[in-house]
Amino acid sequence: MPQTIDPAELTARLIRCASVTPEEGGALVLLQEMLEQAGFDCTRVDRGGVSNLFARWGDKGAAKSFGFNGHTDVVPVGNRDDWSVDPFGAEEKDGQLYGRGACDMKSGVAAFVAAAIDFVQATPPEGAVILTITGDEEGPGIDGTAALLDWMDETGERMEMCLVGEPTCPETFGEMIKIGRRGSLNAFVTVTGVQGHAAYPHRANNPIPAMARLVDRLSTHGLDTGTDHFDASTLAVVSMDTGNPATNVIPRQTRATLNIRFNDLHSAESLKEWLWAEAQWVAEEFEVEIDLDVKVSGEAFVTPPGELSAMVARAVEAETGLSPVLSTTGGTSDARFVKTHCPVVEFGLVGQTMHQVDERVEIAQIHRLKSVYTRILESYFT
Amino acid sequence: MPQTIDPAELTARLIRCASVTPEEGGALVLLQEMLEQAGFDCTRVDRGGVSNLFARWGDKGAAKSFGFNGHTDVVPVGNRDDWSVDPFGAEEKDGQLYGRGACDMKSGVAAFVAAAIDFVQATPPEGAVILTITGDEEGPGIDGTAALLDWMDETGERMEMCLVGEPTCPETFGEMIKIGRRGSLNAFVTVTGVQGHAAYPHRANNPIPAMARLVDRLSTHGLDTGTDHFDASTLAVVSMDTGNPATNVIPRQTRATLNIRFNDLHSAESLKEWLWAEAQWVAEEFEVEIDLDVKVSGEAFVTPPGELSAMVARAVEAETGLSPVLSTTGGTSDARFVKTHCPVVEFGLVGQTMHQVDERVEIAQIHRLKSVYTRILESYFT
Ligand SMILES: [Zn+2]
Ligand SMILES: [Zn+2]
Repeated sequence: MPQTIDPAELTARLIRCASVTPEEGGALVLLQEMLEQAGFDCTRVDRGGVSNLFARWGDKGAAKSFGFNGHTDVVPVGNRDDWSVDPFGAEEKDGQLYGRGACDMKSGVAAFVAAAIDFVQATPPEGAVILTITGDEEGPGIDGTAALLDWMDETGERMEMCLVGEPTCPETFGEMIKIGRRGSLNAFVTVTGVQGHAAYPHRANNPIPAMARLVDRLSTHGLDTGTDHFDASTLAVVSMDTGNPATNVIPRQTRATLNIRFNDLHSAESLKEWLWAEAQWVAEEFEVEIDLDVKVSGEAFVTPPGELSAMVARAVEAETGLSPVLSTTGGTSDARFVKTHCPVVEFGLVGQTMHQVDERVEIAQIHRLKSVYTRILESYFT
Repeated sequence: MPQTIDPAELTARLIRCASVTPEEGGALVLLQEMLEQAGFDCTRVDRGGVSNLFARWGDKGAAKSFGFNGHTDVVPVGNRDDWSVDPFGAEEKDGQLYGRGACDMKSGVAAFVAAAIDFVQATPPEGAVILTITGDEEGPGIDGTAALLDWMDETGERMEMCLVGEPTCPETFGEMIKIGRRGSLNAFVTVTGVQGHAAYPHRANNPIPAMARLVDRLSTHGLDTGTDHFDASTLAVVSMDTGNPATNVIPRQTRATLNIRFNDLHSAESLKEWLWAEAQWVAEEFEVEIDLDVKVSGEAFVTPPGELSAMVARAVEAETGLSPVLSTTGGTSDARFVKTHCPVVEFGLVGQTMHQVDERVEIAQIHRLKSVYTRILESYFT
């Protein structure tokens, strides 16, 4: 099969588009131009200030349609002085390509776009190849992949199954495929008592002992021990804050923030109920008011091992010789939206430097990723 | 006995001296002038940028010597726009005298100075009347009353017993004498674990659950149930702070501040030992590091009911008809220093507006306080 598109070169061009969420930065424009030249039908599905690109090769409504999902937006560079290179310069050093988005995930997008274009041009398949590429995965994520899927529902566009190109490998390329993610929620706890002088605590009602008890109870409660496809759910209280500088004053209020990563034994709703019950118990015990503000980032989801994961695993193994683990670890991803549309798994590069200073990717790995994606397309359409 | 000095007028003159710690503001200069005119030997005992005044009527080393301790410095006015009057204007409205220091404690100083001058001039006693007046009770208190007492030790000056003129009455003039104070210390607790991502808590070691357990243990531990002269000791955790804005990050460190007010069953040392033992237990249980920084404000002290408190109580009762409670409640005071020199009790006005906006004092009460102080001097010297 002729290799017309160099995925490392495309990654470099994408890095030079400074597409910090929600800036489009020229990245989607560049991809749209390349895809249209290769015969893809492209539509910009922008919503709420976010730019998104839908691209389809082949017929709308084709029985066989393989989808890809990824993002071109990147997190901010942080302290630019800490970088040894221009974060948007795409410099090459010792076989590595440097820049914000190098591994998360302009290389993933470039590898799939390169694989898809070369594949449809070399061996035009029976069916459709669909790309859904968003400019807001790192931000609020409200008008990103969700907007693309809404638009697809409205216009009758359909993927039979979908691959997300996020970095999935902790250390070695090929070692891990993600078939789902745990759910995630944050709870903001406020305990309110009665302010007073530290010398007369009986005239006050200190909210801090109540908060300590609540945090102790929540922290020591094991949510579960894991399921077939998931690790144990975890709860981390990440901050407790009062902000009272006066050692002789008992404060009126104190706050805490906690994060729960939960598996398929729980839902955001069941966890909210449990948190409220614990808060209620402590509120009565300590005669304080406790308020909870729960923000749900996503429910737990999984595409149980099956046709899609087997196909991806075979492609990875053929390319790398490794038999990848099917995992549900890590933070949430846009696969949570795609899951409502069709089966979805994630496979991509080693993610060690993502979101960090001097983010970089091994150039050889980008080529191997393109090969894996090509193998998947070949396998799906034959 | 001829009344030559109007204590309310003197209070007003002192209020007009803007003596916010450590500013002398003219207050001690004014008092020195008046006392010298009345035959007192005066010495300025300034130390470390703090102004202090020592004054003695009668012979140095007299067998009978009654002492008074007070301060002319005041706390800052806070937000001046919140005041309905000039904080240093000494305005009179509806029988009240307004201004910073009106109750804490320029009125107490004025009442004692007026009583002492009138007393020694009308009925020159056999013995000495001594005044120790500091310009730093509201500040660090290192070079205030302590400096006066150091100087007295060095020069052989001696009080047989001493009255501190701080406001002591919660609501009604005459209801309370203070014979001691609980000790006070602050402890600053730091728990250090290992930072990490909230999605992978097993790779981190969150210091927050350890802090919650420690705070819970300390808060629910009853230190004691009180003693003959003291209320129960109290412990208040006044702040817990992490300052972690990232809900997906497990913090490395978290802090808490606690205040202990302790009676004569404890010492700062015994409490430090207990705190360290609790911290050690939790540190081992949670495999974290816990550091304690303990700052002692003062040990518990008491002048057990006896000659001095009985004499003061009789004077209060004769003037007000009330039988005052002998209390050890409230924050610490300079009596803690005086206690190392001689028996000491505290009696003064109603302290409701001390340190507040629109601080004020009932003018009639200043005159009654002078009368109580006069009765005490009469009683002591006859
Ligand atoms: Zn990403
Ligand atoms: Zn005072």
